[in-house]
Amino acid sequence: MSLPKIAVDCMGGDYAPEEIVKGCIWASKEFAQTIFLVGDEQRIKEILKREGVKDERLVVVHAKDTIGMHEPPSNVLKKKESSLYIAGKLVKDGVADGLVSAGNTGAVLTVGKFVIGAIEEVERPAIGVALPNPKGKTVLIDVGANVDCKPKHLVQFAIIGHTYAEEILGIQNPRVGILSIGEEEGKGNELVKETYPLLKQLGLNFLGNAEGRDIYAGTFDVIVCDGFVGNIILKASESLGMAVVQMIKEEIKKSLLAKIGAFLLMPALNNFKKKADFTEYGGIPLLGAKKPVIITHGRANAKAIKNAIKVATEFYTHHFNEKLASNMKKFMPEGAKASWA
Amino acid sequence: MSLPKIAVDCMGGDYAPEEIVKGCIWASKEFAQTIFLVGDEQRIKEILKREGVKDERLVVVHAKDTIGMHEPPSNVLKKKESSLYIAGKLVKDGVADGLVSAGNTGAVLTVGKFVIGAIEEVERPAIGVALPNPKGKTVLIDVGANVDCKPKHLVQFAIIGHTYAEEILGIQNPRVGILSIGEEEGKGNELVKETYPLLKQLGLNFLGNAEGRDIYAGTFDVIVCDGFVGNIILKASESLGMAVVQMIKEEIKKSLLAKIGAFLLMPALNNFKKKADFTEYGGIPLLGAKKPVIITHGRANAKAIKNAIKVATEFYTHHFNEKLASNMKKFMPEGAKASWA
Repeated sequence: MSLPKIAVDCMGGDYAPEEIVKGCIWASKEFAQTIFLVGDEQRIKEILKREGVKDERLVVVHAKDTIGMHEPPSNVLKKKESSLYIAGKLVKDGVADGLVSAGNTGAVLTVGKFVIGAIEEVERPAIGVALPNPKGKTVLIDVGANVDCKPKHLVQFAIIGHTYAEEILGIQNPRVGILSIGEEEGKGNELVKETYPLLKQLGLNFLGNAEGRDIYAGTFDVIVCDGFVGNIILKASESLGMAVVQMIKEEIKKSLLAKIGAFLLMPALNNFKKKADFTEYGGIPLLGAKKPVIITHGRANAKAIKNAIKVATEFYTHHFNEKLASNMKKFMPEGAKASWA
Repeated sequence: MSLPKIAVDCMGGDYAPEEIVKGCIWASKEFAQTIFLVGDEQRIKEILKREGVKDERLVVVHAKDTIGMHEPPSNVLKKKESSLYIAGKLVKDGVADGLVSAGNTGAVLTVGKFVIGAIEEVERPAIGVALPNPKGKTVLIDVGANVDCKPKHLVQFAIIGHTYAEEILGIQNPRVGILSIGEEEGKGNELVKETYPLLKQLGLNFLGNAEGRDIYAGTFDVIVCDGFVGNIILKASESLGMAVVQMIKEEIKKSLLAKIGAFLLMPALNNFKKKADFTEYGGIPLLGAKKPVIITHGRANAKAIKNAIKVATEFYTHHFNEKLASNMKKFMPEGAKASWA
């Protein structure tokens, strides 16, 4: 199995370039044939030197410009000397097989959609995230790439999510649902009501409406929603997790016995934390672009970057993008793209 | 301070009438002048007798019909002999000052809107829930009463949420936000972009867009959203909480030390659980009806019912509904209802 060449935007993210470069060093030992470290050549080489690394699999590509975390995403298309644009161009030109960035999420999406480009049948690439539950994982898609969606977009997300669950998570015949309120067909908002009958036609294992409670219950393998709802759920979940930990800590502080208890519990809690920790996942994929595009948290450290590169490698070695192109043809009814609203 | 008379639907909920009646008995000792126990007279009286209760503050009102948990909500308007309808009618007619039900949520909403009726300036009563965070509470409104909303509805939710935070939670000059993705004005879906400029005009302490991460962070006191998004967040949060507890338990099972640790931690965890437990809150209010309407979880036990009656009493003694009517006049710009889309 040949390993891919991955282009990494070394200037994006809160801890760039230091942690990004360290993540690349770490990943190069396991997950990639070549890593292109794109960014300020001098700074990157200084870090490599300080870390004592001389590895021909790590190739520095100079970029003199950067994209700020709060710049309008479309700026990246004008800033052709930016590390993100150049990294995207390496993928577009076939020099690299996938992109990893911890930078401005909107700008990474823009590069994925307009520099690397979407698979022909996919109108709107979407972000899918595999959320943990006691039985396994559930893919929530879209979690932020597409704010206002039409029924046909949710239909495409369903096929994309199906492919993700099957090819990457190894779930056979994944159970697909549409996020709504109320279980029965006919319950939900206008978008859900219009999308439901289309989803029934696809030949996916479509179980109908999924409710909020299904997201972490393991009752569905794929849940589709528009990027507005999905993004809010994702961020609310993160925030709830942090709030719970903080509130429990406050309670523990009040009692010595509880402090001892917490100490004894630590290894079990750390095992749990591993399941929930974003640095373990590393990155979430923009699904539907022609090549793997992995977006990591702005707060990504070296470990998160290493794991993001691992994710890109998984998508490459599983031929995800080729399988998605084939599934889009297989499941989309003839003429559907043109006729569906 | 005079206590209210509360009408309780004794036939709604998974544990009706047993737990509902017990909750009424419990509450009658503290929170109400009179409780009307509406439902199957014979069954209710049997429970009262078995519990050895003779209290003239507990008045049984017979209803020969019930509303099933999965019936179409509008059925309640036809079933005028149902416990829920009769309880609502007692409030409508001024015999009781507030309604509590653990029954079919949609049917309770229907009774609130169409039997008890909305405050004149409120077009759409909404469900507000006070979610815990490390610093206090944040009101999320609407969490399920209104699926598809227009900008003017979100504006009304903002005034309702403001009044809830100020009068019930005791928060002065509450910080109000609109749920969106991205912090800056102009970010979000079409509904948010249209609502934002209207919210700026109201004279509320409007801070702009709130993101998913703000829901449990204590950065806002009131966050408005449509009932589709709000309901999904509420249920996803519940489900995430349960999943986390289950996953941590699985880890604890694997180690003896962790088991001992968990045992020592128990009191602290129980304190935390109290903060998060729906039976402690008891019920969530339908805000904007003319009188307090409190909906409890279908799984409500006696304690939840007792606390729901307590919530109804709080709304009554704080004159919430009168203050809301006055705030609607104070904050809604002249002619806004007619002219806003």
